[in-house]
Amino acid sequence: MKILLIGAHGTLGQAVAQELGSRHEIVRAGRSSGDVRIDLTDRASVERALASVGPLDAVVSAAGNVAFGPLLEMSQEQWDVGLQDKLMGQVQLALAAVAHLNDGGSITLTTGVLAEEPIRYGASASLVNAGIQGFVLGAAIELPRGLRINAVSPGVLIESMPNYAPYFRGFDPVPAARAALGFARSVEGADTGKVYRVV
Amino acid sequence: MKILLIGAHGTLGQAVAQELGSRHEIVRAGRSSGDVRIDLTDRASVERALASVGPLDAVVSAAGNVAFGPLLEMSQEQWDVGLQDKLMGQVQLALAAVAHLNDGGSITLTTGVLAEEPIRYGASASLVNAGIQGFVLGAAIELPRGLRINAVSPGVLIESMPNYAPYFRGFDPVPAARAALGFARSVEGADTGKVYRVV
Repeated sequence: MKILLIGAHGTLGQAVAQELGSRHEIVRAGRSSGDVRIDLTDRASVERALASVGPLDAVVSAAGNVAFGPLLEMSQEQWDVGLQDKLMGQVQLALAAVAHLNDGGSITLTTGVLAEEPIRYGASASLVNAGIQGFVLGAAIELPRGLRINAVSPGVLIESMPNYAPYFRGFDPVPAARAALGFARSVEGADTGKVYRVV
Repeated sequence: MKILLIGAHGTLGQAVAQELGSRHEIVRAGRSSGDVRIDLTDRASVERALASVGPLDAVVSAAGNVAFGPLLEMSQEQWDVGLQDKLMGQVQLALAAVAHLNDGGSITLTTGVLAEEPIRYGASASLVNAGIQGFVLGAAIELPRGLRINAVSPGVLIESMPNYAPYFRGFDPVPAARAALGFARSVEGADTGKVYRVV
């Protein structure tokens, strides 16, 4: 398969590239590095990136920013980061990908454990992650040509604990390599409208 | 209790007013009718409405618009309706309400069955409803002074079936009066971070 991987150089993206790269051709995309440049908040950039790589068998997003902060101190700009980037950036990527996917191809988005397990300062992330999961359910039943869409919801990554541990006390962190298995299930399996929780 | 009810003149809002009105003082708010005018997409209007009614024991939203349409034909403007109105309109209402609620007061938002049970043309509604549910989880653990927040997720209302039946074939419609019970549980119970599914 030919797979476009967005966020290929992030902690999660590198693990996904390693998991899928041994069996498939990976086109690496990122905001500031990779074979192709893509900014999820810029629809023209998304369209350009998809058009430049030609017909694909899978589009995988391991990208998406969201802002963290005390609930009552979050600015409109902070809410907008999650809404425009991780939420609608991935939604617009999914919708734009349809025209560039071969029949039976797949779209895989990234959500996260905060959709169901909240933490302090994480209300925007809980909103955004849950929203992605709702979108995946809704979109799956309307995609044409046997196209599929799923999401992977990893727990906090072991590799991220040096930065995030104080916010995730008591959470059992997940190796990025194990989170990457969720992406393999989505891309190489036959499910659609599913959220793979890797926690 | 003194309760501000937004969307008081809608199908659901009328039933909520009837359920809660026999035991509590209801201040009715709406976009174009009611004791107080409020437009959820206009933060100044939300602040003004809350300030004008003074200290409250509960803020209840039975409001929020979302656009329906074929997944691959939805315009940016259609996505924005749900994001700005039902999703972030209710989020901003909840955040603004905090300063106007008495200790132990409650916030109740409206989501809906499409968060878990998708229908054709409903991907935006699934996204928005799921997002509200994520927000409620995340916000509940950070609210001060014993404030609580919950959401009610009704199925399609019997009263709405004349318009919506073709989109909800096979769904068991819910009387608005029964959906209103979820609001009573939220306002008069002691839960927080909960989604009451009335289906």
